[in-house]
Amino acid sequence: MKKLNTSPISGTQEFLPSTQAIFDNLKSTIQKTYHAHGFLDIDTPVLERSEILFAKAGGDTEKQIYKVKKTGEDPTKPADEALRFDHTVPLARYIVEHENDLNFPFKVSQIGKNFRGERAQKGRFREFYQCDVDIIGRSSLPIFYDADIIDTLLDTYQNFNLTTPVIVRISNRKILKGFLEGLNLQDKSKDISSIIDHSEKVPREKTEQNLTEIGLDEHEKEKILKFIDLNGGKDEIRSGLLALGVSNPILDEGIEELGTVLNILESIGHENTKADLRIIRGLDYYTGTVFEFALPDYPEVGSVGGGGRYDNLTEYFSDQKFPGVGGSVGLSRLFFIINEKNLLGSTLKSPLDYAVIPLSDAEIPYALEVAKDLRTRGASVTILSNDKKLSTALGHASKIAKNAIVLGEEEVKNKSYKIKRFKD
Amino acid sequence: MKKLNTSPISGTQEFLPSTQAIFDNLKSTIQKTYHAHGFLDIDTPVLERSEILFAKAGGDTEKQIYKVKKTGEDPTKPADEALRFDHTVPLARYIVEHENDLNFPFKVSQIGKNFRGERAQKGRFREFYQCDVDIIGRSSLPIFYDADIIDTLLDTYQNFNLTTPVIVRISNRKILKGFLEGLNLQDKSKDISSIIDHSEKVPREKTEQNLTEIGLDEHEKEKILKFIDLNGGKDEIRSGLLALGVSNPILDEGIEELGTVLNILESIGHENTKADLRIIRGLDYYTGTVFEFALPDYPEVGSVGGGGRYDNLTEYFSDQKFPGVGGSVGLSRLFFIINEKNLLGSTLKSPLDYAVIPLSDAEIPYALEVAKDLRTRGASVTILSNDKKLSTALGHASKIAKNAIVLGEEEVKNKSYKIKRFKD
Repeated sequence: MKKLNTSPISGTQEFLPSTQAIFDNLKSTIQKTYHAHGFLDIDTPVLERSEILFAKAGGDTEKQIYKVKKTGEDPTKPADEALRFDHTVPLARYIVEHENDLNFPFKVSQIGKNFRGERAQKGRFREFYQCDVDIIGRSSLPIFYDADIIDTLLDTYQNFNLTTPVIVRISNRKILKGFLEGLNLQDKSKDISSIIDHSEKVPREKTEQNLTEIGLDEHEKEKILKFIDLNGGKDEIRSGLLALGVSNPILDEGIEELGTVLNILESIGHENTKADLRIIRGLDYYTGTVFEFALPDYPEVGSVGGGGRYDNLTEYFSDQKFPGVGGSVGLSRLFFIINEKNLLGSTLKSPLDYAVIPLSDAEIPYALEVAKDLRTRGASVTILSNDKKLSTALGHASKIAKNAIVLGEEEVKNKSYKIKRFKD
Repeated sequence: MKKLNTSPISGTQEFLPSTQAIFDNLKSTIQKTYHAHGFLDIDTPVLERSEILFAKAGGDTEKQIYKVKKTGEDPTKPADEALRFDHTVPLARYIVEHENDLNFPFKVSQIGKNFRGERAQKGRFREFYQCDVDIIGRSSLPIFYDADIIDTLLDTYQNFNLTTPVIVRISNRKILKGFLEGLNLQDKSKDISSIIDHSEKVPREKTEQNLTEIGLDEHEKEKILKFIDLNGGKDEIRSGLLALGVSNPILDEGIEELGTVLNILESIGHENTKADLRIIRGLDYYTGTVFEFALPDYPEVGSVGGGGRYDNLTEYFSDQKFPGVGGSVGLSRLFFIINEKNLLGSTLKSPLDYAVIPLSDAEIPYALEVAKDLRTRGASVTILSNDKKLSTALGHASKIAKNAIVLGEEEVKNKSYKIKRFKD
C-alpha cells in the first residue's frame, strides 16, 4: 500500500477529543454571550460568487482568496466560485439580499470558518474560526451601539475565565483625521496612519525616521509624536490635543464620540478599557470608533480581537447606505495562544460523566436502562461493551469519563449499582 | 454601480435569523443527544489533500469533488487541495494519524459542512451539514455498538419532537451475501443488490424484468422476489429464510447479528424499529448491519438518515484494521423537508427574551444596568437606542423579542421597570 500523508494540511488545525472539548466550550461561551446580548445568528455559505468576493478585496487579501472548481471543469477558465475570507463581505451581500426582511438596527452574529491562502506561520491559520458581532443601521446608527459591541466582546473575554486580564484600547479615526486636517497634513494621511499603526512595534527612533522619510518637518514630527503619546484617560486626551493647538470640527466630533463610548463602558463597570490614539486597525475600512483587545501580560502576542465603526457596509453592492459597527474574536488564533501560554485556569477534565461497564452481554439490558436513566438527568453516558478484561475496560473508562459503573449479576438482581469516581 | 447578484449561489442555503434559530436549535439537539450518548466531538479541516480524498472516491463522488486553488497558483497544474465531500474519509485519515492518542472503541461525532458539486435539485445541496456518529474499534468491535449507534440516532430524531413518527428499518448485508452464496449467485451479487435497492421505487414487474435481464431463471427469480418480501419481525424473517431452503454460514451469522441488534433496541423500549431486507445502502461500503431512517407518513421523501457497519475504515490509508459502525443525520436535507412539510409542532417564537428601550440617552446607563441584571439570570437582552419614535421602537421590539421594557425618567428615579409582554 502506498503510504499517504495523513497529517492535516499545513495552516489547518485539528485536535484530539479532549482538546476539542475545550475549544468547543470556548466557542459555546462566545455563542451564549453574543446571544445574551441580543445578537441573532446567521450562517452564510462558505462558497461565494467570485465577483462578490473580488468586488471589495484588494492587495494581499485578493492574493489569498481560495478559488474553487469542480473536477472536470475547464481549469483555464476563471473560477466562478471561491471560499469566503471573512464574514464581512458575505454579511454585506446578505444585508442587500434580505434587506426588506430584516429589522434595523440589525444585531447579527456570525461564528464559522473562513479561509485565506496565507503563508503558514506560527499562530496564523489558512482555515480558521472567526466569531463576529455586527450592528447594522439603515441610513444611520447611534453611537451607543459602538459601546454595545465593545461591551459584548468584553463580557465574552471575561466569560472565558482566563488566568490573565484582557484589556481593550479604544480610539476614533475621526480624531486623527481631524488632527491631520488641522495640521494641513491630510494628503499624507495614509502614510502617517501606517507609521502610527506600527509605532508600537518599532523603537522610537525608527518612528521618527519614518516620519522624516515621508517629508515631515521638525514641527510636524513633534506634533505627531506627541499625538502618539496621548494614551491616558479621555480627559487627558482632550486637554492634550487642545495643548497641541490643533482645532478642527472632525477632531472635536471624534473626541466627543470617544468620550461617549468610554462613558457608557464605565457606567456598566468595565475597568479594563482605555483610550489609546495609536489604535488604527488597518487603513481603509473604519471611519469612526476603532478598538483592539490585548493581553497586557503578553505584549508579544499582539491583538486578540478588535473592530470598529464603518460608514457604509454595502458600498460595493448597493446605492443605499448601511452604516455599522462590528468586532470579532479570532477564535482559532486565540485558542492557539491560550494553549501556548496555558491561560485556562481549569485543568483538563474527562469529557464524559459516566462509563457503564456490563461484565458480560447478559448485563447489557440493565446497562442500557442505567444509561437511559442517567441521560434523562442530563448526564453524558457511554456503555463499554466488555469484550476484554475488566481492568482494560476500567483503564479505558478512566481516560474518557469522570465515573465508572460496573454491572454484574448481583447488580442486575438487586437493580442497584455503585459509582466508582475517578480522581480528577 | 454595477449591480452584482447578491443571492447565495445555487445549492447553498442561508436563512433569515428567525429560521436560522430553528435550524440551530435542531443542530444543538443533535449535539446534545450525541454527547449524552458518550460521543466525543472532533472537527477535521474542510480543506483536505486531494490524494486523501481521491484515494477512496470513485464514480460520481469523484466528479463531485471541489478542488481548491489560491489566486495566482498555476491553474493548469493539478490541485493539491480539495473540499471534503463527507466526514468518513477525513475520519479515516484522523484515525491513522492519531491512532496512538485515541482510546478504542472510539465513539466520535462530527457535525459540520461537506461539499459536493452536484447538479442543484430540490432538497439536494452542494454545501450542506452532516451530523455523523461513528464507533471505531481496533481489530474488532462487538455487535453491541451497532445497536448503540441506532439507539443514539433514534433518540436524536425523537428529541426533535417532530409531528410525524420516524422509523428505522434494519438489515444485515451478510444475510443477502450468504443467501446469494447459498443459491450460487454470488457472481451476480452487485447487480442483484442494486435491483433490490431500487425495488421499492419501481413496480413489481420492473423488478422482475430487471432480474430476468441479468440472466436469472424462474426458480432464482422467485427466490429473490420472496427474499424481498421478507420484511416482518426477526422471527418471521428467520423462518421465511429457512422456508426458502437456503442454508449458508454467512447467512446464519447475518440473521444472528440482526436478531441481536433488534433485541437490544427492543430491550431499551424503542418501538419504531423493524427488520427489512430491502435495505441495502449503496453497494461497496457496508459489510454487516445496515439501517435507514424514514418518515412513514411521507414515503415520497425517502431516507432521512442511515448508516451501517464496515469492516475496515482505514483500508486506503493503513495496513491495520479498524472496523466500525456509523450513521448520520443529513441535517440540511432534513431541515428542508421539515420546512416543506411543516413537521415542527411549535410555532416560531421571537428569538430574544427582552428588548430594553431607553426613552432618551439619559436612560442608557439604567438600561445597561437592567440588561446586565437580566443577563445574569440567563436571559437574552438587546437594548434599542431610541433615536426614533417610541412606537417605531416598540414595533421593532415586537418582531425580535418576547417582552419589551420601556425606561423613562420615572423608572430611573424609582429604579423600577414594567415588562410589556408581546402576544406569541
